[in-house]
Amino acid sequence: MASPEIDALTQALARLPGLGPRSARRAVLHLLKKRETALTPLLRALERVSESLSVCSTCGNVDTADPCSVCADSRRDDRLLCVVEEVSDLWALDRSRLFPGRFHVLGGRLSALEGVRPEDLSIDKLVGRVAKGGIDEVVLAMNATLEGQTTAHYLAERLETYPIRLTQLAHGLPVGGELDYLDEGTLAQALRARRPVA
Amino acid sequence: MASPEIDALTQALARLPGLGPRSARRAVLHLLKKRETALTPLLRALERVSESLSVCSTCGNVDTADPCSVCADSRRDDRLLCVVEEVSDLWALDRSRLFPGRFHVLGGRLSALEGVRPEDLSIDKLVGRVAKGGIDEVVLAMNATLEGQTTAHYLAERLETYPIRLTQLAHGLPVGGELDYLDEGTLAQALRARRPVA
Repeated sequence: MASPEIDALTQALARLPGLGPRSARRAVLHLLKKRETALTPLLRALERVSESLSVCSTCGNVDTADPCSVCADSRRDDRLLCVVEEVSDLWALDRSRLFPGRFHVLGGRLSALEGVRPEDLSIDKLVGRVAKGGIDEVVLAMNATLEGQTTAHYLAERLETYPIRLTQLAHGLPVGGELDYLDEGTLAQALRARRPVA
Repeated sequence: MASPEIDALTQALARLPGLGPRSARRAVLHLLKKRETALTPLLRALERVSESLSVCSTCGNVDTADPCSVCADSRRDDRLLCVVEEVSDLWALDRSRLFPGRFHVLGGRLSALEGVRPEDLSIDKLVGRVAKGGIDEVVLAMNATLEGQTTAHYLAERLETYPIRLTQLAHGLPVGGELDYLDEGTLAQALRARRPVA
């Protein structure tokens, strides 16, 4: 019934996580009815992000500038580095504003099942950052999953020769929990109780 | 943490029905990570809709052409007219492809509480369409709410002088409805409108 243009928009929205065909249709109707207050602002926001989108060449964060806003923030502590699996993890930790240091995004986790090897992740770059010196502590903030912990172990081995304190998030994380889904209170606890890698 | 551009996009998405701040953030991350397969298609789809969006001057449907695809469809029966409150109702009825006629969107419902009067709705236009002739039956497909039914009564009065058949959607048990779970209003309606077993 709807025109091809509207169908295309519905399908593009339905592919977003958290939206299905039904909610996408509701969203499209909302956009069509509120052209000035909904459609145009969303279009402009997408345009601006699309024009300026970039991956930070230092930490791997996705932002509209390179270096990203985290790396460019001079108030952050250069001696603290937090390693995370995904950009969403960085955002989740940074939302709580509890970590005053820098970040490093691996771009995934080691996984025999999915065939993800060390060279598929941003690990050499991480080792390079640490090797350059000036970092006192590296926090391994992997997910509390089997693969996350495997990745943390691997990173601990790769980094053990450097004069840094290696820590990991405290086991306040529920088993199987993923950072992006946790409440800030749990994240805060886990950060506060971080401990040396055994 | 995120740049102003990304924040603006998150906020624009969070205002869509069915998305909150958290799911909007996940959607934005998805868009940022899948630039070619998610962000660009969504942007293009929004652009095309934004360029061509219009309200049908005949029926009030929102589409990318005027007259809309329903009014322009020559296979539809001009003698059948279905009156609905909102564009979303038109889409819902048309998705089922059960109604072969034309539509008329009121743009709301009469409501003393919200101060919606007859002149705020597309009622004069509806009367005009009926007065022009050529219509055999008008289906009042208002919601089964107090305000929807008030609106239907008002429309019935406005249209009673014209030589048309005025009908409304049947009220009763929804398909799959179980007596034990249905409200008393629905049960009362279903009982009142009971009909002989075929």
